[in-house]
Amino acid sequence: MEIIKGGITAPKGFKAYGEHIGIKKSRKDLAVIYSEKEATYVGTFTTNIVKAACVSWNMERYKNVDKISGVVVNSGNANACTGKVGEDNNQTMAAIAAECFDIDQDNVLVASTGVIGKQLPMNAIIEGIKKVAPLATNTIEGGYEAATAIMTTDTFVKEIAVEFTIGNKKARIGGMAKGSGMIHPNMATMLSFITTDVAITKELLDKAVKEDVASTYNMISVDGDTSTNDMVMLLANGMCDNILIEAEGKDYEIFKEALNIVNVFLSKQIIHDGEGVTKVIEVIVEGAKDLVDARLLAKSVITSNLVKTAFFGEDANWGRVLCAMGYSGAIFDPTKVTLYYESTRGKIKLLENGLPENFSEEFAYEVLKEKEITVHIILQEGNFNATAWGCDLSYEYVRINGEYRT
Amino acid sequence: MEIIKGGITAPKGFKAYGEHIGIKKSRKDLAVIYSEKEATYVGTFTTNIVKAACVSWNMERYKNVDKISGVVVNSGNANACTGKVGEDNNQTMAAIAAECFDIDQDNVLVASTGVIGKQLPMNAIIEGIKKVAPLATNTIEGGYEAATAIMTTDTFVKEIAVEFTIGNKKARIGGMAKGSGMIHPNMATMLSFITTDVAITKELLDKAVKEDVASTYNMISVDGDTSTNDMVMLLANGMCDNILIEAEGKDYEIFKEALNIVNVFLSKQIIHDGEGVTKVIEVIVEGAKDLVDARLLAKSVITSNLVKTAFFGEDANWGRVLCAMGYSGAIFDPTKVTLYYESTRGKIKLLENGLPENFSEEFAYEVLKEKEITVHIILQEGNFNATAWGCDLSYEYVRINGEYRT
Repeated sequence: MEIIKGGITAPKGFKAYGEHIGIKKSRKDLAVIYSEKEATYVGTFTTNIVKAACVSWNMERYKNVDKISGVVVNSGNANACTGKVGEDNNQTMAAIAAECFDIDQDNVLVASTGVIGKQLPMNAIIEGIKKVAPLATNTIEGGYEAATAIMTTDTFVKEIAVEFTIGNKKARIGGMAKGSGMIHPNMATMLSFITTDVAITKELLDKAVKEDVASTYNMISVDGDTSTNDMVMLLANGMCDNILIEAEGKDYEIFKEALNIVNVFLSKQIIHDGEGVTKVIEVIVEGAKDLVDARLLAKSVITSNLVKTAFFGEDANWGRVLCAMGYSGAIFDPTKVTLYYESTRGKIKLLENGLPENFSEEFAYEVLKEKEITVHIILQEGNFNATAWGCDLSYEYVRINGEYRT
Repeated sequence: MEIIKGGITAPKGFKAYGEHIGIKKSRKDLAVIYSEKEATYVGTFTTNIVKAACVSWNMERYKNVDKISGVVVNSGNANACTGKVGEDNNQTMAAIAAECFDIDQDNVLVASTGVIGKQLPMNAIIEGIKKVAPLATNTIEGGYEAATAIMTTDTFVKEIAVEFTIGNKKARIGGMAKGSGMIHPNMATMLSFITTDVAITKELLDKAVKEDVASTYNMISVDGDTSTNDMVMLLANGMCDNILIEAEGKDYEIFKEALNIVNVFLSKQIIHDGEGVTKVIEVIVEGAKDLVDARLLAKSVITSNLVKTAFFGEDANWGRVLCAMGYSGAIFDPTKVTLYYESTRGKIKLLENGLPENFSEEFAYEVLKEKEITVHIILQEGNFNATAWGCDLSYEYVRINGEYRT
C-alpha cells in the first residue's frame, strides 16, 4: 500500500482535464473525467430533501445504469432550486459531454457546485464542454487540472492516489475532492470523485463505499450545514486486470483499506481547507457501547459552536465537550468519562472518571497553541470507537459567510 | 389579560430577593424565592445526559414532592461535573434555605448557573443564603433584585407579569429568566422561574407547562448547544382564591393564554440578549403537514450557522434557508415552497412555489438592515404552523466564546 503521485488519473484508463470556460470570472470552472473502459459506478448523495438537478440525475444513473464512461463537473453555479429548466440544463450537459466522448448520455454523470437559485449560463457551458472534453488526458496534469476546476473558494487542490497489489496485479485508487467554500457565499458543498482500475462487482463496490463514507466524509463537519449538492462518486473500470472481486475476502479487504486511505485523506483535506479554519480538531471516542453511539458522540463534539469557539480561543474549556456529549443522544455514564487534549506539544488530562483534574492552565494553553489538536474521549461502556474531524469557529468564518453575495 | 409591572413577586404571596454574596467579583449572585403558601410545582429540565446537581435535585422533587415553598439560585458557578461533593453542596444549599424559611429541605428547589467543573464556594454560599433569605419581600423590587442576581453575562434583566381574571378573581403570573451568557465563557444556560397565584392541579399545571414550553423556550436557539443546567420551573400557590382548576375548560384556557404570554416574552428576551446578537430572527412556518414538521423546519432554519451569518451580513441568501429546511428531517415538496423576508422596512418575496423570484437586491438589503427580521415560509402540505426565534452569528459571538475563561 503506497501513496503515489497524482489523483483521479492515476488508475489505468482514466483521463481528465479542467479549464476556465466563463462561469466564474477567471478561475477554472469546468472539469471532465473519462474512462476508456466503461466503469462500474456507485455513489452516495446528500440527505437534503432539496436536491440539485445533478444529484437527482446521478441517483437515477445509480439505480438504473450500471456502467459510466464520462463525468462532467462545473463549479460556480450549483444548479439547485432551478426547477424544470435546471433539470433540462443538467441533461444538456450530459448530452453534450456524451457527444464529445461518443457515448450515450445515460452513461454520463454530472456534478455542479456554487451559488444556488440561478440558471446555468448554458451557452458558455455547451461551448466549454466541447473545448475541454477533447483535452482529457491520462497524465498526472490532467487529474490536477480537473481537481483545480472543481474548486470554489477552496484554497488548495485536494487529490491523492494509492497503489497496492490485488492478487499479483498492481492496482490503484485515485481521488479528488472539493470542500467548504464558495464563490458567492452559499453552502458548504462537498464533492468527491474516486476512480480505480480494480475489477469489482457493483454490489461490493457499493458496500465498500457506503461503509467507508460513514467513517470518513460523514464524520467531518465544518459548520453542520448539509448541502443540496453533496456527493461522493466512485468509478471502477477494472483495467488493472485483477480477478473480479465478487466476494468478501482478502482482495476486498485490501481494496477497502486503500479506499479508506483515500477517503480519510480527502476528508481531512476538506477540513484543513474549511472556511476560516485556524485549527483542525480530531475527536477520538473510545469505549462506546456501540458504533452508532461512538459516532454520535464524536460528531456532536466536533459540531458544537461552543467547543469550536473555545478551540479558536485556545481555551481548555472541557465542560463544553462534556456538554456536547451529553446532548448527542448517545447513552453513557458521565461519571466514567476520561478526557485528554493532545497536540505535538504534549498531552493533558482534563477529566478522569467524570471528575475534573487539577491541570496546569499554562500547559493546557501550550498544548492548544498548535494547529492540530486531538480530543481523546474514553468511556467505559463497551468496545466501539469512532473518529471525527472538524475545525474551530473563527472571526474569518463569520466574515466569509456574512459577506454579501454580489 | 393585562401586562402589569413586576415579575415573580407580582402574584400574591410570593417573596423574593437577590444580592451579591461573593461567588462573582461584584455582581449579584444569589437569589431566593419564597411562597407564603405551599405551591404546586412542575418543571421541565435539560435533556442533556450530563445534568448539574441542581437539575437532578429538582427532578427528584418533581417526582416525589408535590409542594414547594422555597427556591435558592446562585449564578457564577453551575455546580455541574462536580460529583458527590457537588450533590452534597446542592443539598446543603437546600438545607440552609429551609432553615432560614423554617420549612423542610424537601420543599426547597435549587438552581445554579455559571462555570462548569468547579466546586461551589460553600462558606460564601451558606453565609449568603442566611443573609439574603430574610430580605425576601413581595415588592416589585424584591422580584427585580432576584431577576438581577440570576444573570451571568446577560446585559439586561428579564421579567414580566400578567394579570387576568379567572372566575371572578384577579389572578397573576410572574416570570423571570436568564439567557445565554456566562461569567467564564461556558454554556448558554437558560433558567426560567414562573410564579402564579392561580389554584390549579399539578396534573393540569404540568400539561400546561409542557405544552407551552414546546412552543416557547424549546423554539429558541442562540447557538444550538443544550446546557447541562437548563430548567423551567413553575410554582402555583393558589392564593388568588379562584376555584381550583381541575379540568380543562375556560379557566384552564385563560391560564394557558396568560402563561403563553409570559413564556413567549421571556423566550424572546433571551434571544434579544443572546451572545453577540446584532439581529433577532423570527421564523414562521405555515402549512406544514403536522406540528412536528412545522417545528423541525423552523428550528432547523434558526439554528443554521450559514443562515445566521447571512443575516449578520444582511444578505438575502435565501438558498441557505431552503437548504436548512431540506436537512431538517421534515417532509415537504421544495417545489411548493414560498418564502418572504419581512421587517419594518417592508416585505420581499424571494421564492414562489420553489422557483426564485427576480427580486431587487437593493430592496432586500433595505429590509435586512433592521434589527428584527421575520422569515415567512409557506408550504402547501397541511394546516400546521410554528414559530421559532433566534439570532444572527456575529464576530462578537466568536469573541465572547473564544475568550479565555480565566
